[in-house]
Amino acid sequence: MIYKAQNHQKIYVLGAGAVGCYFGGMLARAHHDVTFIARPERARALNDVGLEMDCIGFHETVQVRASSDLSVLSDADLVLLSVKSLDTERTMEQVKSILPSKAVILSLQNGVANIDMATKIVANPIYAAVVYVAAGMIGQTTMKHHGRGELLIGNSAQADPSDEQILQEISRLFEGSGVPCSIAPQIKRDMWLKFLVNCSFNAISGIGQISYGEMFKSPSTVQLIEEITKEFLAIAALEGVNITMSDALAANNAIAATMVTQVSSTAQDLARGKMTEIDLLNGYIVELGKRYGVATPYNESVYALVKMIESQIKLSQ
Amino acid sequence: MIYKAQNHQKIYVLGAGAVGCYFGGMLARAHHDVTFIARPERARALNDVGLEMDCIGFHETVQVRASSDLSVLSDADLVLLSVKSLDTERTMEQVKSILPSKAVILSLQNGVANIDMATKIVANPIYAAVVYVAAGMIGQTTMKHHGRGELLIGNSAQADPSDEQILQEISRLFEGSGVPCSIAPQIKRDMWLKFLVNCSFNAISGIGQISYGEMFKSPSTVQLIEEITKEFLAIAALEGVNITMSDALAANNAIAATMVTQVSSTAQDLARGKMTEIDLLNGYIVELGKRYGVATPYNESVYALVKMIESQIKLSQ
Repeated sequence: MIYKAQNHQKIYVLGAGAVGCYFGGMLARAHHDVTFIARPERARALNDVGLEMDCIGFHETVQVRASSDLSVLSDADLVLLSVKSLDTERTMEQVKSILPSKAVILSLQNGVANIDMATKIVANPIYAAVVYVAAGMIGQTTMKHHGRGELLIGNSAQADPSDEQILQEISRLFEGSGVPCSIAPQIKRDMWLKFLVNCSFNAISGIGQISYGEMFKSPSTVQLIEEITKEFLAIAALEGVNITMSDALAANNAIAATMVTQVSSTAQDLARGKMTEIDLLNGYIVELGKRYGVATPYNESVYALVKMIESQIKLSQ
Repeated sequence: MIYKAQNHQKIYVLGAGAVGCYFGGMLARAHHDVTFIARPERARALNDVGLEMDCIGFHETVQVRASSDLSVLSDADLVLLSVKSLDTERTMEQVKSILPSKAVILSLQNGVANIDMATKIVANPIYAAVVYVAAGMIGQTTMKHHGRGELLIGNSAQADPSDEQILQEISRLFEGSGVPCSIAPQIKRDMWLKFLVNCSFNAISGIGQISYGEMFKSPSTVQLIEEITKEFLAIAALEGVNITMSDALAANNAIAATMVTQVSSTAQDLARGKMTEIDLLNGYIVELGKRYGVATPYNESVYALVKMIESQIKLSQ
């Protein structure tokens, strides 16, 4: 079960959205053996024309291998799990009889429920990556990078003696490919801090189709974000994660300041007529609130409105 | 000060939006002496081509008189006050030295704060009309009527011996012009019931640009409306208006059922890049909540989001 970070290791990117294409693309560009698992149309296009990486630091088309056939995962050493949180369960069910036991999974997903969900389905070691990158797909094969691009990785579940070696190898793999990748001793807290930002920003940016910078110009919205944050911290504490209000506001402000022109993935999904991850963002806080008997009216309000807008999309399709 | 409902009485419609044009248009169509006070462009167009009333029961262009000069109000007998709630204070300040003391004002506005605001500025008798009509303006001179069109009128402030005669004369005026107009013994409660529907529907319809019928297809939205309603009823009770939850839900459901395809005036304002009345709808509930020390998180959430969308409009203008 020890994962070998060799140059001939087989890396699979499971879910070729903007996050998968950014980090998988960085590895492919550094000549690692990367295969993108994507829907047939995107897989075909990536094989035909490559992945255009329109990044802040460079602009290159990287030749990549892609497939829409999950059976290719049978020789996987490392799987970057970058499907939407909504698809985690279904995807894990589909790959559980294909993945070799040696395969290590690194979840690059939003939310805090993915690893628990996946662990219930596959026995492979699964590590968490907290992802900070602003990126989006343009068409099938262009990944536009707007900012940042680093990873925090760690074991968010039960610790295992092999963790340290595996995490160091993953970190070296990314660092050697131009991706800052630190091992975080408190990855669960880091995940919740990222999750906080998602809960604070994604729904509101989606409802208003508005950038993080613009959101913070509206005083009533700043107040709303603070109320959402207060509820979030109460739930986080019940989940064993202690974040102070000032740490939380600092995390929100840092994102607002470094991603001024960014709109959330929720906003991007709604604009494209796609299902959002809202059930696993504010919807998950609402769900935990019900489980603990704690009121979460602000999270509930933005959650309800995103669901309403989502339902309109489905009706209009 | 007794208002005379004579055929030669001078009626002014102060604010020629959809509501003013529907009810003023019905009076003009019945050959009453009606003058619409509008912005210069609309006043000119109404004088030139008349008011096209595209109604459920008929489709006619009614010749009307319009002006953008407030000084014409100096001979007013009856003023239908149909400016936006946001403009009540400013408008009353502008007309206070023009309006003759004989003029009776009937407020056809949304919200529950207009009459108090106006009473502080002018000494004229002011009555409340609770308006149920689905209508919108198309261009400068076409009023499109989608449904209903009745009035409940009464004195929401301190009772006066002359009330009954005046209200009966106003009622006869409208009834004789094809507008059902009942005198409501509990007009304040009726105003709050209409206000409830505005607080339940306007913001959400505006945020989603969604019709009342579609809103009610989203279970999370139905739940959100119920939570907004609960907060509203707590505030209403503190304001001396007792409405039960089942009465409130029945009022909401009646509107959803009879105005399926209607979007709120807030949605119409946002779509047109105009300021909304949200400060006097959910914003007023939030304000009263603060005054009474009662939490109103659901109202606060939808209020904040409408303000945010509104601020985007201003930025993009």
